Amino acid sequence: MALTELGRITGPQALKELPPGRLPELAGDIREFLIEQVAATGGHLGPNLGVVELTLALHRVFDSPSDRIVFDTGHQSYVHKMLTGRQSGFGSLRSAGGLSGYPAREESEHDHVENSHASTALSYADGLAKAQQLRGEEHRTVVAVIGDGALTGGMAWEAMNNLGRGGRRAVVVLNDNGRSYAPTAGSLAEHLAALRSGDDEGGNLFRIMGFDYLGPVDGHDVAAVEEALREAVRSNGPVVVHCVTEKGRGYAPAERDEADRMHGIGVIDPATGRGAASGSPSWTRVFGTELTKIAERRPDVVALTAAMLQPVGLAEFAGRHPERVFDVGIAEQHATTSAAGLAMGGLHPVVCLYATFLNRAVDQIMMDVALHRLPVTFVLDRAGVTGPDGASHHGMWDVSLLNTVPGMRVGAPRDAARLAELLAEAVELRDGPSALRFPKGGTGADVPALRRMDGLDILHRTKSRPLEVLLVSTGVLAQPAVGAAELLAEEGFGVTVVDPRWLLPVNPTLVHLASRHRLVVCAEDGVRAGGAGSALATACADAGTTTPVHVAGLPGEFLAHGKRPDILAGHGLTAESLAGVARERLGAPAPSPAIAWERTPR
Amino acid sequence: MALTELGRITGPQALKELPPGRLPELAGDIREFLIEQVAATGGHLGPNLGVVELTLALHRVFDSPSDRIVFDTGHQSYVHKMLTGRQSGFGSLRSAGGLSGYPAREESEHDHVENSHASTALSYADGLAKAQQLRGEEHRTVVAVIGDGALTGGMAWEAMNNLGRGGRRAVVVLNDNGRSYAPTAGSLAEHLAALRSGDDEGGNLFRIMGFDYLGPVDGHDVAAVEEALREAVRSNGPVVVHCVTEKGRGYAPAERDEADRMHGIGVIDPATGRGAASGSPSWTRVFGTELTKIAERRPDVVALTAAMLQPVGLAEFAGRHPERVFDVGIAEQHATTSAAGLAMGGLHPVVCLYATFLNRAVDQIMMDVALHRLPVTFVLDRAGVTGPDGASHHGMWDVSLLNTVPGMRVGAPRDAARLAELLAEAVELRDGPSALRFPKGGTGADVPALRRMDGLDILHRTKSRPLEVLLVSTGVLAQPAVGAAELLAEEGFGVTVVDPRWLLPVNPTLVHLASRHRLVVCAEDGVRAGGAGSALATACADAGTTTPVHVAGLPGEFLAHGKRPDILAGHGLTAESLAGVARERLGAPAPSPAIAWERTPR
Repeated sequence: MALTELGRITGPQALKELPPGRLPELAGDIREFLIEQVAATGGHLGPNLGVVELTLALHRVFDSPSDRIVFDTGHQSYVHKMLTGRQSGFGSLRSAGGLSGYPAREESEHDHVENSHASTALSYADGLAKAQQLRGEEHRTVVAVIGDGALTGGMAWEAMNNLGRGGRRAVVVLNDNGRSYAPTAGSLAEHLAALRSGDDEGGNLFRIMGFDYLGPVDGHDVAAVEEALREAVRSNGPVVVHCVTEKGRGYAPAERDEADRMHGIGVIDPATGRGAASGSPSWTRVFGTELTKIAERRPDVVALTAAMLQPVGLAEFAGRHPERVFDVGIAEQHATTSAAGLAMGGLHPVVCLYATFLNRAVDQIMMDVALHRLPVTFVLDRAGVTGPDGASHHGMWDVSLLNTVPGMRVGAPRDAARLAELLAEAVELRDGPSALRFPKGGTGADVPALRRMDGLDILHRTKSRPLEVLLVSTGVLAQPAVGAAELLAEEGFGVTVVDPRWLLPVNPTLVHLASRHRLVVCAEDGVRAGGAGSALATACADAGTTTPVHVAGLPGEFLAHGKRPDILAGHGLTAESLAGVARERLGAPAPSPAIAWERTPR
Repeated sequence: MALTELGRITGPQALKELPPGRLPELAGDIREFLIEQVAATGGHLGPNLGVVELTLALHRVFDSPSDRIVFDTGHQSYVHKMLTGRQSGFGSLRSAGGLSGYPAREESEHDHVENSHASTALSYADGLAKAQQLRGEEHRTVVAVIGDGALTGGMAWEAMNNLGRGGRRAVVVLNDNGRSYAPTAGSLAEHLAALRSGDDEGGNLFRIMGFDYLGPVDGHDVAAVEEALREAVRSNGPVVVHCVTEKGRGYAPAERDEADRMHGIGVIDPATGRGAASGSPSWTRVFGTELTKIAERRPDVVALTAAMLQPVGLAEFAGRHPERVFDVGIAEQHATTSAAGLAMGGLHPVVCLYATFLNRAVDQIMMDVALHRLPVTFVLDRAGVTGPDGASHHGMWDVSLLNTVPGMRVGAPRDAARLAELLAEAVELRDGPSALRFPKGGTGADVPALRRMDGLDILHRTKSRPLEVLLVSTGVLAQPAVGAAELLAEEGFGVTVVDPRWLLPVNPTLVHLASRHRLVVCAEDGVRAGGAGSALATACADAGTTTPVHVAGLPGEFLAHGKRPDILAGHGLTAESLAGVARERLGAPAPSPAIAWERTPR
């Protein structure tokens, strides 16, 4: 019965026609649907369980898509998707060609912002409100739904400073669940707690910033939220509607999980909330364990996270040394520059971010850290293709961005052993910044080196053959590179595979190795423009090396969601494809064994 | 007499020993010195005239360098430099090898932060305070001096959220002069105005964010500021000392100039405040005039500035259409994402920034604008080497950063006519973002093209010679490229000079042209890593072109202050150097005239 009623809600109009008394049951049905569906596909569960009633109220009060509802961090848009005709798509959630885990304009006219990096909604709202005013579209209302965690990001402040004084109608729905992944950090959280408890004696931040303030409202009471929203629309200026919600609401395993309330999950058993046991330990866990070990012997090592203590692997370190781990909120800029301050003060900070969020701190890395040659280590988790989270979550820009930063060293471990090794090397650097990048998922088996040469690891060489192809593997692409070498060797090609370990700056011995081969193929899990392969090509050109350098990497495009291996394969990052590129470029193998492989002098 | 007394202040200790009664006279002497010196060299005058008394108080109360005084936007550190033993250096202010216009660690142990991008000081202070606490250095106090304008930047918010709740001692000196270049924008400015007038009935932002608040204090009363600072030190937590100052104080031409109060000046007559008449119109002015023309026929065109209405040339447009020009504060992130909102709302926003500040908005350009293929045009003034402002002001990263952005088009006009033309093309684009870049200074004479070919301008070709060198000039490097071509032609080389106008994406005809020559030399006023030359080299490699591509650009290093032409010459960006590179790479010219230059098919 329940799901049938839910099935009749094919769009906002059907929802508007529903008698208010039926809403609690509908909310229950939506939760049931979400838990069942997301348990089967993986996805963002906790945030969506928290916004069920709030989203019902939004679509009952506003007239989407004429009124534009902009979701900050669009992973809280599942209920919105269900209410705008997309229930049937949830079986394919986050699969290639299936429903996106974020708003997607090609799915629906009700979706506007596809980016899921936090703290942007108020800026969009400010722009939309200005556009509507200039175009005389006074009938439209712009609505921004933003979490308390996202308010800790600087962009949100910049936007409040503008939206608050403009006198234009805009409704800001503050979805205050007291947390992002972890409980929200900082003074703001304390202020919101005071407002939640009805205490605004010390003033009200939003009123100071020029907004009307309505609330606090129980965000799980549809009628109360509706009433507040209707009052907000009657105002002709900017209004904050402060809704108090509970992340993971209505699902016991999420409510019990104080750590992150099932923020984002893989496939789980819906009854218990438990996932299947995974194989090799995750990169995140290996990193966390290694950093904790280093921290034991190095009291100057401290760590920072931007509201993602667990996801970046810092829980163990924080458990042992809470005074040395800092959660700064969703604030990559501050994470970076306060790390610069920590380094100036004599410590070695390790800034732990998802690779895609590094984009937020480019200026700070450049001007605050690198200009002062400060020893700060950036650890970039979820680097390269991530998979089901799609375009704005692939960590594919990091190497290219860091390639512009003077003095920056960038390392990419190919396995767990190399992660431990590179991390140990990184925290020993005293004269400038470094960064390490590794992907989502398990580390897999170690990939042994035949030998190390001037810091490079030789992973494969075809004996008694001329030096034809140099395959430069970066990070975890060591596996397909070695696979490609084996295929090529069988065909009679002379192949060397080298893992430079440190991608930037380019190791001069790598350039020398390149000059001894007929072709270089560099495999990288990042955009080709300005990345590791590009840096190698430039270094080769500067050295007068004429060996062509082919960069096998990701194109300068946004990549849709899908499985990581499929996306990599789709862009030529498999053993077969790498071998194919070399074969096509070289033609036939060299006719005869000639130069024995030997140690290349520097 | 006056300057003799000033001359005896060789360090903070001498200042501390001065009887308070002598301070007003000393302040007067400092102003006289500043006006005379900065009028002779150029530099930041207004901001420093505003912080004379405040800086005297800082060095009387605090024990620098043990106490660390961090200046946000270090152009307000001239008085600090004078009081820490560097008066004699002002004759060489901002000249190559001379005194930096910002704090510089190699100049003095009293200097800490060399970056002059705004809004960073509180983040440094947070990091330093944490480091001092962890290292047991409780005797030290960290002091951050930040303007009200810089508080509009999101980083400052992120830092307040952390510094305010940490319980660590930190003194934030708010230098509130009500403006950055222009009067400070937004709700914050209104709140500070209320606090300045003693009205905190609606609450106090700083107290809400966890700080003690002292003030408002007359920032031109040394004794009052000293007293407040001493009280701040007695607190063991974070304190904001709200000092009200006047930018340009004590210099009539600055006080009269409502537009920017002589924020940064060239060489002027100190009596009148007037500079010498310049030659050709500035790039800024040409842009401002062209945009205003376009805006007349295109009501959908709007413009945004991050607190730099005059410096980026928007005053004329704002004068005619105030409702279509938005000053968002020092907030490049919000400028970009609110522009995305404006574009979603049906307008064509033009975001006007200094090129160096583009770094602040990389994520927003990528994820908020480009991911949604929105028609936003970025106009980057002061691109490339800027000169006397040094390392953090050179706009040399923009092309490399934008090269990572899918769908981004980057144009670089070589002269005023091309700026008009490219701007007109940019605002016609409907399916994604674009950026134009041009340098500081005058446009100079137009550089005519021999012909246009598939959007490329051919500026030179050596007739009746083989196609040997293809010189690719970007933007204003057209002049030295043509000069190099003339030198090489005299020596018998066959040379083509092409200005691609749009640097990104790489024009396929440019790749074809490259394939017809023996060598490509690409001249660019930006970092070589991942820039326009790198993109061309990649495109050539992808097309199987074997012509070597030499990129003549800026190295991956921070470049010190100096004169723009000297810095360009120091990095090989002159006619002679470009010719030299080609000569060296090619050896002798090809022996005989062979292929007549002809139209190259696409």
